[in-house]
Amino acid sequence: MLSFESDYTEGAHPQILQKLLETNFEQHPGYGNDVYTLSAKEKIKNICQLPDADVHLLTGGTQTNQIIIDTMLESYEGVIAAQTGHVASHEAGAIEYTGHKVLTLSQTDGKINAFDLKSYLANFYQDDNHEHMVFPGMVYISQPTEYGTLYSKDELLQLSTVCRQYHLPLFIDGARLGYALMADDCDHTIADIAKLADVFYIGGTKIGAICGEAVVFTKGNTPKHFVTQIKQHGALLAKGRLLGIQFDTLFTDDLYFSISRHAIECANRVRKIVQEKQYPFYIKNSTNQIFIIISDEKLAKLKEKLRVSFWEKYDEKHTVIRIATSWATSNEAVAALEEIL
Amino acid sequence: MLSFESDYTEGAHPQILQKLLETNFEQHPGYGNDVYTLSAKEKIKNICQLPDADVHLLTGGTQTNQIIIDTMLESYEGVIAAQTGHVASHEAGAIEYTGHKVLTLSQTDGKINAFDLKSYLANFYQDDNHEHMVFPGMVYISQPTEYGTLYSKDELLQLSTVCRQYHLPLFIDGARLGYALMADDCDHTIADIAKLADVFYIGGTKIGAICGEAVVFTKGNTPKHFVTQIKQHGALLAKGRLLGIQFDTLFTDDLYFSISRHAIECANRVRKIVQEKQYPFYIKNSTNQIFIIISDEKLAKLKEKLRVSFWEKYDEKHTVIRIATSWATSNEAVAALEEIL
Amino acid sequence: MLSFESDYTEGAHPQILQKLLETNFEQHPGYGNDVYTLSAKEKIKNICQLPDADVHLLTGGTQTNQIIIDTMLESYEGVIAAQTGHVASHEAGAIEYTGHKVLTLSQTDGKINAFDLKSYLANFYQDDNHEHMVFPGMVYISQPTEYGTLYSKDELLQLSTVCRQYHLPLFIDGARLGYALMADDCDHTIADIAKLADVFYIGGTKIGAICGEAVVFTKGNTPKHFVTQIKQHGALLAKGRLLGIQFDTLFTDDLYFSISRHAIECANRVRKIVQEKQYPFYIKNSTNQIFIIISDEKLAKLKEKLRVSFWEKYDEKHTVIRIATSWATSNEAVAALEEIL
Amino acid sequence: MLSFESDYTEGAHPQILQKLLETNFEQHPGYGNDVYTLSAKEKIKNICQLPDADVHLLTGGTQTNQIIIDTMLESYEGVIAAQTGHVASHEAGAIEYTGHKVLTLSQTDGKINAFDLKSYLANFYQDDNHEHMVFPGMVYISQPTEYGTLYSKDELLQLSTVCRQYHLPLFIDGARLGYALMADDCDHTIADIAKLADVFYIGGTKIGAICGEAVVFTKGNTPKHFVTQIKQHGALLAKGRLLGIQFDTLFTDDLYFSISRHAIECANRVRKIVQEKQYPFYIKNSTNQIFIIISDEKLAKLKEKLRVSFWEKYDEKHTVIRIATSWATSNEAVAALEEIL
Repeated sequence: MLSFESDYTEGAHPQILQKLLETNFEQHPGYGNDVYTLSAKEKIKNICQLPDADVHLLTGGTQTNQIIIDTMLESYEGVIAAQTGHVASHEAGAIEYTGHKVLTLSQTDGKINAFDLKSYLANFYQDDNHEHMVFPGMVYISQPTEYGTLYSKDELLQLSTVCRQYHLPLFIDGARLGYALMADDCDHTIADIAKLADVFYIGGTKIGAICGEAVVFTKGNTPKHFVTQIKQHGALLAKGRLLGIQFDTLFTDDLYFSISRHAIECANRVRKIVQEKQYPFYIKNSTNQIFIIISDEKLAKLKEKLRVSFWEKYDEKHTVIRIATSWATSNEAVAALEEIL
Repeated sequence: MLSFESDYTEGAHPQILQKLLETNFEQHPGYGNDVYTLSAKEKIKNICQLPDADVHLLTGGTQTNQIIIDTMLESYEGVIAAQTGHVASHEAGAIEYTGHKVLTLSQTDGKINAFDLKSYLANFYQDDNHEHMVFPGMVYISQPTEYGTLYSKDELLQLSTVCRQYHLPLFIDGARLGYALMADDCDHTIADIAKLADVFYIGGTKIGAICGEAVVFTKGNTPKHFVTQIKQHGALLAKGRLLGIQFDTLFTDDLYFSISRHAIECANRVRKIVQEKQYPFYIKNSTNQIFIIISDEKLAKLKEKLRVSFWEKYDEKHTVIRIATSWATSNEAVAALEEIL
Repeated sequence: MLSFESDYTEGAHPQILQKLLETNFEQHPGYGNDVYTLSAKEKIKNICQLPDADVHLLTGGTQTNQIIIDTMLESYEGVIAAQTGHVASHEAGAIEYTGHKVLTLSQTDGKINAFDLKSYLANFYQDDNHEHMVFPGMVYISQPTEYGTLYSKDELLQLSTVCRQYHLPLFIDGARLGYALMADDCDHTIADIAKLADVFYIGGTKIGAICGEAVVFTKGNTPKHFVTQIKQHGALLAKGRLLGIQFDTLFTDDLYFSISRHAIECANRVRKIVQEKQYPFYIKNSTNQIFIIISDEKLAKLKEKLRVSFWEKYDEKHTVIRIATSWATSNEAVAALEEIL
Repeated sequence: MLSFESDYTEGAHPQILQKLLETNFEQHPGYGNDVYTLSAKEKIKNICQLPDADVHLLTGGTQTNQIIIDTMLESYEGVIAAQTGHVASHEAGAIEYTGHKVLTLSQTDGKINAFDLKSYLANFYQDDNHEHMVFPGMVYISQPTEYGTLYSKDELLQLSTVCRQYHLPLFIDGARLGYALMADDCDHTIADIAKLADVFYIGGTKIGAICGEAVVFTKGNTPKHFVTQIKQHGALLAKGRLLGIQFDTLFTDDLYFSISRHAIECANRVRKIVQEKQYPFYIKNSTNQIFIIISDEKLAKLKEKLRVSFWEKYDEKHTVIRIATSWATSNEAVAALEEIL
């Protein structure tokens, strides 16, 4: 059966598997002290144009969100996020598990904006009772958002400006960062992200790796004894080489970007097909996730041949589904999708 | 440089890498719902002779200890362990991070015994003030222990008997379980472990896998909504196939056991060499870790050609070092070690 | 200066202080094992018409909310509350500190309703991804609400019915319960509360006590080793008599209810004054808190003679203030307020 | 029945109750912003000879230990304590509940010493694996100890010196501080304690108050937003006056010290009686707790007329009991005890 269900249905990019094979019997120290991890870190710092950044490799997205938020916040602080932010709704309470509240702002197309953020912060500090409330300690956004939409460079700059005014770190969840940066209408680079964010991560799990997220602390702001804190959270991999080799490969010869671009091109073709077949878009975006509205009748038929994500009920007779392309999507799969739709 | 530093210096068993390659472009659902994970679980249940057991795959040892202990204990309970238990001393407070105290018993050669355990429990419940203390809620042991020693079947049975009398689950940390079961003097099988433990795990990271531990709940005692709790702890892998394929391979044709046995045979040869060269053993054991006492002078020389683990100072002029063999140790390496020692 | 700032500006009811004096040199065991605590518990069970209920005395409201929610929820569960619920907004993250998310429902006049609750729960369980989300584990409401409004008996019954359908405990925060029950239009008794709630508490701090809240577990559902858990949360008072004597006094000769009624009568007079003086009410209610809209100009003048709570800005030129009466409000104070308004 | 069971069997010093009565109908702001709290803080700073200290009033001992330790430690740090320290053994896991490990040192007569502390710290930082362990972040001692023994000024100075060398705060639990300072052989004052400790508290619950502990941050080292953190821990009293009035009274005309001295004089008389009656002391000390070894036969008889604390079994036929005097012990009670013993 054809599947566009998610961007993590395949394994790893073949070059990664090849490298794992080649290096398999080399002996390396554990816990991220191997040469591949060190090399991957250097390459990421270079691409970010931040020689003094600090890079750490973790295994998965929820884990990364949990650890960044917990280790950067003071214990009495919460993280500000869109109501639709992944940390607000789809991480099984992993943030609250560490003792921190997610403070939600309303969103449009998955995005928060600088005006709302500033109002929230101004109101908080004007409230006589704010000592009895959770202090805002960080701002979390996803690029692209959970709806596949993009913040423009100007929007990021505005958010970043408010954050700095209030001394709050801006954290950009880049679980699908490559798919943002390679979108047709993206007006910024990873170096811009590195400049505007205080901390962000480069998602591997959804872009070519079998697991792995690369966290970048951009301003000499790594939490103290960060490796100990990773271990304390149960997230320190003994064979750190698994992550090191993957990111070292992804950031050799711009592999990360070229495979991200491939997913975008596939998505662009899918968007064209959807338009031609006159399915309405639920939300417009330019990245690798396509949200369309489909009649339940049609959906029942599709399901015989195609796996997609059920997103939410649109109305009594229609459903929002998500079609996701990825680095692993083949041209044949897109052609087959056209056939089915 | 020759390294016997630990049992996690290489990658994965070649058959695992081969299988990752072969299956790479198959599309599978995430979060452990892929066919390889399901197959691995079945194979593990078979080998344990426990058709009704429940198996879950996690990524690393500290993570596994943290999640098992936190999800099985009531919030006001602690876990009993040897003072030298890994959870008591070398996990960066990962257990306490989840709110639970590690209640320590004294140990001999890394082992606790049923008599001490029973005394502890009897005293606890006799204490008028026990409502003001941490309730013992679980017993944790490692097989083999942190010192490479083994509990005999009878010792396990005795501990298990006390546990059942006090309605405490017995948790066996099997990060190196294969190296226990394949030791010359081991008097029990994995099915015995499965029968005596309420929960245990089969370590992959140190035995053939690049990462992964297989948790077995043996008595219909899986914590409720366990997958949600794994996610809440930041430990749910999106591409669960990475773990599934590894354990499916390890438990095909007894690979797990044959590679474990190889490590033991290497260790036996090392023990013989050590004896011949008249280095005193710090502790006697029959598994893959060999602890020897060496003069600091000799150690300084060795270090030029050999990497081993510094364990602890023995006295002013001597040091305890650890030599670890593994599934990946070559005959050539053992020969080279003989040369150097 | 005249103050209607809150209902906790004075000390304790004189009969309480008298009793503290009389019993001061009696020797009693600690931690709630004194005769006054035992007597208070009996009286509360009687008034609730629940001979099998279990009553525990705690010190303050946030503490009580934190402990009830944390000890009754499973670790992967959150508590459902109105967005304006005290636990959602004004407790400095005390709930999240214990690892639990507050799941918010929209509200009208501070109240949630059974329809919204049922929709929320139905949607949750229909969502394919609900294993990746926080499980609803309890419903929290305040009676009266943070806006001084009341749930009717029928509304409580409806909420309770949905809760039972989904096996969720209904928790009623009664920090001001006396002021609800003694309101002119209250259509139920404390026995009704005890019947409909799975757990609730009778607020003392705001009604006659210098500190203290009495928690009632109504259905044999006290969390295991609850005293140990109170201690673990740092909330076990050594001299439990302080709480015992207070609640024993409050529930002797219906003192709790008569002093609550006094506050309501004062509030009714204030409401009449406000109406006569033609200040618009921000919200209509019948309990001890009166929310009115006042011009900033007028407010500036009032402040010279009167202390009230600033609630929120209404618009650019108006403010919402809160006037609170209590068991300690004197007739003279109400008369003086009339003068000033 | 005569009771010497503990030092918290009575209510509050009569002057405190008198003051509560006198001020009862004054209206004061909540949460510690009342004039009595402010006055108490000033008096405590004066007596400590630390005009820049920061004083906060909390309700109970476990709560105070929990909050001080949790708010002063980094999340990856633990607190060093004697194995017999109250936080290590008798607080129901309240410290671990906040995520922190208690790192234990061996003790003599309830005390740790500077040499052992320094060795522990030196070993920790020499261990190659210390990044995988819990960082020591604070040293906790009790003055007097749980066995009623005293640290001399010199011993405190030595501990303090090691702490400063390693940049660790020294925390002195003074739940019974008055009984230490007023002991015959105490060689230091509260000002010395204030100088040597980084944080300590002055126990009220066991010395004249019905509840309450006064925390003193001595070095401008109050945790940020401490009031918010108190609230987050569920420990912020709405009617802070309850604590303010008590400590204001206790530190007026040296009441705290004179009533502490009374307890010591009673204890000295008890010690004399014990000696005359030839009961062996389990431990020698000079404060208000007296530990004696008694035959089980004799104990059975005593129990008919006397309540004391069972401490632990001494051997098969003997038991260690504790006799505690307090500010409330009467001369008649001591005479009656003599009779009974």
